[in-house]
Amino acid sequence: HQKGCGLALAGPWFPARDATDNFTYRTGIFRNRGAIEGNVVLDVGAGTGVLSVFCAQAGARKVYAVEASSIAEQAVGIVRQNGLEDRVDVIRGTLETSELPEQVDVIVSEWMGYALLHESMLNSVLFARDRWLKPGGLILPSRAELYVAPISDLVVEDRLSFWSTVKSQYGVDMSCMTDFAKKCIMNRDIAVSPVTVEDVLSHPARFAEIDLHTVTQEQLGSVRGAFACECFGSACVNAFCVWFTVTFPGGDKPLVLSTSPFQPETHWKQAVLYLDEPVDVVQDTKVTGEINMYPSEESARHICIDMQYTIGGCKNLCLLLCLYFALGLQVIPCFR
Amino acid sequence: HQKGCGLALAGPWFPARDATDNFTYRTGIFRNRGAIEGNVVLDVGAGTGVLSVFCAQAGARKVYAVEASSIAEQAVGIVRQNGLEDRVDVIRGTLETSELPEQVDVIVSEWMGYALLHESMLNSVLFARDRWLKPGGLILPSRAELYVAPISDLVVEDRLSFWSTVKSQYGVDMSCMTDFAKKCIMNRDIAVSPVTVEDVLSHPARFAEIDLHTVTQEQLGSVRGAFACECFGSACVNAFCVWFTVTFPGGDKPLVLSTSPFQPETHWKQAVLYLDEPVDVVQDTKVTGEINMYPSEESARHICIDMQYTIGGCKNLCLLLCLYFALGLQVIPCFR
Repeated sequence: HQKGCGLALAGPWFPARDATDNFTYRTGIFRNRGAIEGNVVLDVGAGTGVLSVFCAQAGARKVYAVEASSIAEQAVGIVRQNGLEDRVDVIRGTLETSELPEQVDVIVSEWMGYALLHESMLNSVLFARDRWLKPGGLILPSRAELYVAPISDLVVEDRLSFWSTVKSQYGVDMSCMTDFAKKCIMNRDIAVSPVTVEDVLSHPARFAEIDLHTVTQEQLGSVRGAFACECFGSACVNAFCVWFTVTFPGGDKPLVLSTSPFQPETHWKQAVLYLDEPVDVVQDTKVTGEINMYPSEESARHICIDMQYTIGGCKNLCLLLCLYFALGLQVIPCFR
Repeated sequence: HQKGCGLALAGPWFPARDATDNFTYRTGIFRNRGAIEGNVVLDVGAGTGVLSVFCAQAGARKVYAVEASSIAEQAVGIVRQNGLEDRVDVIRGTLETSELPEQVDVIVSEWMGYALLHESMLNSVLFARDRWLKPGGLILPSRAELYVAPISDLVVEDRLSFWSTVKSQYGVDMSCMTDFAKKCIMNRDIAVSPVTVEDVLSHPARFAEIDLHTVTQEQLGSVRGAFACECFGSACVNAFCVWFTVTFPGGDKPLVLSTSPFQPETHWKQAVLYLDEPVDVVQDTKVTGEINMYPSEESARHICIDMQYTIGGCKNLCLLLCLYFALGLQVIPCFR
């Protein structure tokens, strides 16, 4: 429930960190000013229009800032405040229904959702590409990559083991709650929460890559790939975490916006998939598997992650979890 | 959205801390064993039944544990695991529709919601009192008190001032977002978030007290009272925070379960009401006002807080905010 400014309960709430994201976008845009100068840019899901202003500052002849939500009104004010009314046109509406007066040379968009594809705007970006981008045009960012790593979520471990401690502390045997609590974690949705770097048990394993210039809507119906990693040392794997990066072309080496647990936290955090049963690992234990991400049947804007994995000796384990509602709540039964 | 264990997205998620809450309940129950020993107890909203087991351990002849949600199944298991099937009867259903075989000597309940009354079970406790409690019977806890204090939420201040810094950092003037961001905060619901003790600008001011033995359902239609406090020192008041305590009788001095910002955090956190405009205060600046808490017209389980207040010279300011959905999200527009 929400009143007033008509903002959706999505998007970054932490300007400081968003500033970093936006600074990466700004750098990525200016690195590609060769393609932008004197040309036409389409900003898909422009929000406050800050990326459109960056493109105008990078020399765009015209920027079309398409935004469906009421934040578009703020974008109009910001464009005016920066004296760019002549070069930035804010178009209030969905990309799919908006008419542009011309084809564009560049598409820029901050389209990524939780776990990359949860409530993402990627479909709109592809629609924009196929409908409005000139042949040989540029998409910023141009590539997305998905990563996975086994983790040991100690908070959850503590919450589970808590129930076996109640008897000694309070004289009430509540150990039968442990299985119930486990079921609550295992049966629940993918969690979106910041993973502590200490809990990550291996180097990141890339399992999928999306080239925004070539990927089709059909291919997004099943984003899949295999992964393999080796554990750092002795630990108890009780979850996998999934995250993404997006990359801007240009410059000597590509510019990467990362949501890795090894990098400073972003509002995207990480997606956490809990195992049915924790598995003990030691140094160099091999963790391999296949991941398939696809839209939920209940709602195409939500994603499901289907995982087949093997940890050391334990073969052919599997997980099927969906991300419906990304608040990162730990739904674990309470002690009362 | 949630699957599996059928737990509502309410109640404490932090066993460690809940343990403290439950320990207070346990102490409060054992302090009153004189009233419990050999007598009959009704546990309203029993959850896992842990309070019922405490009462049985305190010598109750019979405990009726009434719980409407599926957690009742766990309560049955815990009662059995503790060998109390003969003395603790778990009754699955709502209190209002459940039939007990006898009147009770004691009612125990952990009924408090956010801001005490948001989605609370107090109405069920009063129904239980009027329908099932013997004359002169005991209610644990027996009293609730509501407190308020002016605060300076620095996180919000930073997020607002952020917009005026964008130009110097990124060459984009976004200062017009400040008013918009303010509107988003001011127009939104009461926030539920942990208030840092450093942000609290005065001693707690009590504005209401509820005696569970005498309060009527009608009186809960408008829980109101006046408050007055003096500020510790120079600061900028941008919100009020509201919290509660509940008290157990017996013993030399009453036993208090507090959700004050001056005490360790509980899952209830504090309710934060943002002002339309921040007000500067100095040491001893008087803050006075009246608060009225009443059920929302949209949903009786949700509460509204109507506040008339005066800060130093600024007279007759007022706030009307409602608590619809308590996730403590800071809905502030993002930088994109």
